[in-house]
Amino acid sequence: MSAQPIDIDTAYATFDAIWSPRILANVNDYDVRIAKVKGEHVWHVHEDTDEFFLVLDGELAIGLREDGGERVVTLPRGSVFVVPRGVFHKPSSDGGARILLFEPSGTLSVGDRHEEVPAYVDVTVGHRV
Amino acid sequence: MSAQPIDIDTAYATFDAIWSPRILANVNDYDVRIAKVKGEHVWHVHEDTDEFFLVLDGELAIGLREDGGERVVTLPRGSVFVVPRGVFHKPSSDGGARILLFEPSGTLSVGDRHEEVPAYVDVTVGHRV
Repeated sequence: MSAQPIDIDTAYATFDAIWSPRILANVNDYDVRIAKVKGEHVWHVHEDTDEFFLVLDGELAIGLREDGGERVVTLPRGSVFVVPRGVFHKPSSDGGARILLFEPSGTLSVGDRHEEVPAYVDVTVGHRV
Repeated sequence: MSAQPIDIDTAYATFDAIWSPRILANVNDYDVRIAKVKGEHVWHVHEDTDEFFLVLDGELAIGLREDGGERVVTLPRGSVFVVPRGVFHKPSSDGGARILLFEPSGTLSVGDRHEEVPAYVDVTVGHRV
């Protein structure tokens, strides 16, 4: 084997698309994905998996439908949050952000159920960097 | 549920011990762990799992025993690396570093086989932040 470390900034420089996660690394049957985000994603739910968010730059908001209501958590740069499985959520970022995700390989970017997907949101299980 | 985002720097401020990983979050049956590191860890191997490293501050070196030889990969701040299952490895950091790890819950810090463990290396499956 001759795998080398990957510089995250260099990986970010290889793409411009927003809401289009890139697979940075694999850990067993999980992906480490990175994404550039700006504006609103869609309400969606992953029925069978939690989803981990780390904000590397900018600020991310995540709307959550819980306990019959909605709330929004705000993730500044350098913070993390896990959306539990089965919870409808909608990520957004007014000013734009760079995020890192951990989730099982094959997890669809818009979950198992979702609202209508606008053209600027990529429906994907992640692209190779 | 009322979980809130976790600021990584705030979590780091809650402990001083080196080579003593803290569990920052759970993602299904995986842990996101953070650790302060300085000096040398021990040669060890995780037979059944890959291990993901992200360097948040400082620089980390990882010695790897592969293909009958040894090599060292160097991870500057902002870079990632996955040590494949079954590969003996030894993390170290001359100047000290802060790292984030992603691995299955229950993974022992010194792996399934390891050399003698000095007192400054914590043998643990991770402590709660």
